[in-house]
Amino acid sequence: MVEEIYPHIYYQNGILEIEGVKAEKLAEEFGTPLYVYSRKALEYWFSEFDGAFKELPHITCFAVKSCSNVHVLKVLKELGAGADTVSVGEIFRALNAGIDPKKIVFAGVGKRPDEIEYALEKGILMFNVESESELYTINRVAENLGKVAPIAFRVNPEVDPKTHPYISTGLKESKFGVTLEEAVDLYRKARELKWLNPIGIHFHIGSQITEPSVFKEAAVKVANLVKELHSLGIEIEFFDAGGGLGINYNPAEPPIPATELAKQIVPIVKELGCKLILEPGRRISGNAGVLLTRIIYKKERENKLFYIVDAGMNDLARPSLYGAYHHIIPATLKVSPTKTADVVGPICETGDILAKDRELPLLEEGEIIAILSAGAYGFTMASNYNSRPRPAEVLVENGKPRLIRQRETLADLIAREF
Amino acid sequence: MVEEIYPHIYYQNGILEIEGVKAEKLAEEFGTPLYVYSRKALEYWFSEFDGAFKELPHITCFAVKSCSNVHVLKVLKELGAGADTVSVGEIFRALNAGIDPKKIVFAGVGKRPDEIEYALEKGILMFNVESESELYTINRVAENLGKVAPIAFRVNPEVDPKTHPYISTGLKESKFGVTLEEAVDLYRKARELKWLNPIGIHFHIGSQITEPSVFKEAAVKVANLVKELHSLGIEIEFFDAGGGLGINYNPAEPPIPATELAKQIVPIVKELGCKLILEPGRRISGNAGVLLTRIIYKKERENKLFYIVDAGMNDLARPSLYGAYHHIIPATLKVSPTKTADVVGPICETGDILAKDRELPLLEEGEIIAILSAGAYGFTMASNYNSRPRPAEVLVENGKPRLIRQRETLADLIAREF
Repeated sequence: MVEEIYPHIYYQNGILEIEGVKAEKLAEEFGTPLYVYSRKALEYWFSEFDGAFKELPHITCFAVKSCSNVHVLKVLKELGAGADTVSVGEIFRALNAGIDPKKIVFAGVGKRPDEIEYALEKGILMFNVESESELYTINRVAENLGKVAPIAFRVNPEVDPKTHPYISTGLKESKFGVTLEEAVDLYRKARELKWLNPIGIHFHIGSQITEPSVFKEAAVKVANLVKELHSLGIEIEFFDAGGGLGINYNPAEPPIPATELAKQIVPIVKELGCKLILEPGRRISGNAGVLLTRIIYKKERENKLFYIVDAGMNDLARPSLYGAYHHIIPATLKVSPTKTADVVGPICETGDILAKDRELPLLEEGEIIAILSAGAYGFTMASNYNSRPRPAEVLVENGKPRLIRQRETLADLIAREF
Repeated sequence: MVEEIYPHIYYQNGILEIEGVKAEKLAEEFGTPLYVYSRKALEYWFSEFDGAFKELPHITCFAVKSCSNVHVLKVLKELGAGADTVSVGEIFRALNAGIDPKKIVFAGVGKRPDEIEYALEKGILMFNVESESELYTINRVAENLGKVAPIAFRVNPEVDPKTHPYISTGLKESKFGVTLEEAVDLYRKARELKWLNPIGIHFHIGSQITEPSVFKEAAVKVANLVKELHSLGIEIEFFDAGGGLGINYNPAEPPIPATELAKQIVPIVKELGCKLILEPGRRISGNAGVLLTRIIYKKERENKLFYIVDAGMNDLARPSLYGAYHHIIPATLKVSPTKTADVVGPICETGDILAKDRELPLLEEGEIIAILSAGAYGFTMASNYNSRPRPAEVLVENGKPRLIRQRETLADLIAREF
């Protein structure tokens, strides 16, 4: 009997499996805490997303910041993905995965000259420029290199994405992008600069957005700007609508289909005659990965139950950083009654809580639990806080697990100090 | 003309220096972002603290989690410091710095059996036990090893430390320690277990505490427990009062002298006839370190000024994680008028803010600024988020900078993925 949790993550006769491999077996073979990704799940979510836009010429640029393991990027590359990058490190990772530089976009408010130079040398598709100062810096670096830089401006459409303030990015008071009002003047300036070629426009209104209509609201505003630019003879070839489509952090709630996003923006871009760029990250990797962790101690005190596990806020930062919800399930399905408990990590901070006041089946010390939706902003945010080596990462491919990042060792912790 | 900011961090004729070396010069030589520590400042803060307790036999166990670079630990070791550790990684670091195992205490709610074994083999001073389950695990590991484990219980004195909820740890609903009520029974159980030797008692009520009286309140409660244990024939040799004495994150406010803390607890411990253990971390390293960062871009929009710098929340997590205040000063003192600005990092998150609505002198692109009080919970919490190599660390010793941790490279980012 199969009970699906997320695509390719399911209970098979009460035993949790990831694409045909038991979670318990993975934990035993590779140790815990352990990040596990399913190739088929990555394929499922990529296709679900990318397929929604098939009627338009488009590039689905995977947001590398969400899950940057080179082997995960390779899986996506084989499906045709490009890369949305925000640092020289992410471009380096994308290139290492074999992603075509002509499918790489480079965003970020703080691009250093050396990063711009690297990106130009590699011949990326375009720079998503976030300020006037950056424009001149790119022009200068391009001139030194004798190579014209293709650019887009990131504009703020001033749309409220109705999400966590930390991950809403399209509002005026944020550090990102330029205003719609500034944009025309900046595009004119860019056209005058010899080493720049404005070829696109970019916006990104936030993350984990579950109200698709906000995308349309933003796209309409940006499309009006594109029309104005076209009337000025500034040809905008790429309409980069960013990322931000939310996932369901609770498997009981259905995800918003990517077709709902497509419905909002495809007609607008079609009318413009632009090529579409999309930057999903979490949407593709989030529910393709889990974090497996072992219960070290069970602690009960005055009606308060704690499961102390071997994964902490250094391994998965989202719950402590954002108060984010991650669904937690045991590797072995229980029929026992549930009890309210906190799932906490071993880090010496009160904030090291993975789940607070969560209704969970009664679990025992030594058991493995899976923290779901850990494929995005999981390993990429991990640190060595409390001098803890970072976890290993495993990719399951058709019933076979493959170690795609070795667990760090104690020696690794201090390797760069000698 | 010298204007002191913190001991050994000062303006000399308007130029910021750390123990005799110009901040600008450090940034040029080692690049940015850069963590810089002053040996003399470490010595100053260690002596200020340790000296306050000189009338009692005591061990000042530096909280390794606050600043774990081996070379910083070596400086403190030379001053006589022990180590307060919370993981096998921290014990490994302390031993690498040459710290005597008999000055190492091991706390933490989630000690794994392999960590307990490592600590036992190395012969540490004692385990600060946080649950009954852990007690049995330590006994079992000790039996397998044929080596008695010296232990203390971490008790919760139920004192409100009046600090950030994330760093207050001594309350009942937290995952830490055992209650005063449970403790007597647990000490009795420990005495019955063949491979355990209860030799100490431990409490830690929180971090960044600026109201010294709470320490006394806690110490009195714990001392009463010790008396009860003594009357039961359980000899408590070590009274571990934990850490938590706050620092001044604003240089304009004077720090609370460590003697104020000593006044609260020394008489109590003296009466008990115990040896005192103290676990300062931030108090010693916090204001002995700064994070130097360069302004990449200046961005102005509708009366909102942003300085975009090359250090982000991946390099220094405290402002985004806790909303923590870090004072910021330019490497070159300004006489210009000030303006309200946000200092933000290059990370693609709205939360990547190092200072919000801060009154700062007018600064220019390319300038170096120093983020103060970055010696504690700075580098230790750094991550590779956004695929950013982690900063270098430099120790200045009497006018000479020494690289104590190399900056990570792009190759380092993916080294464990192949």
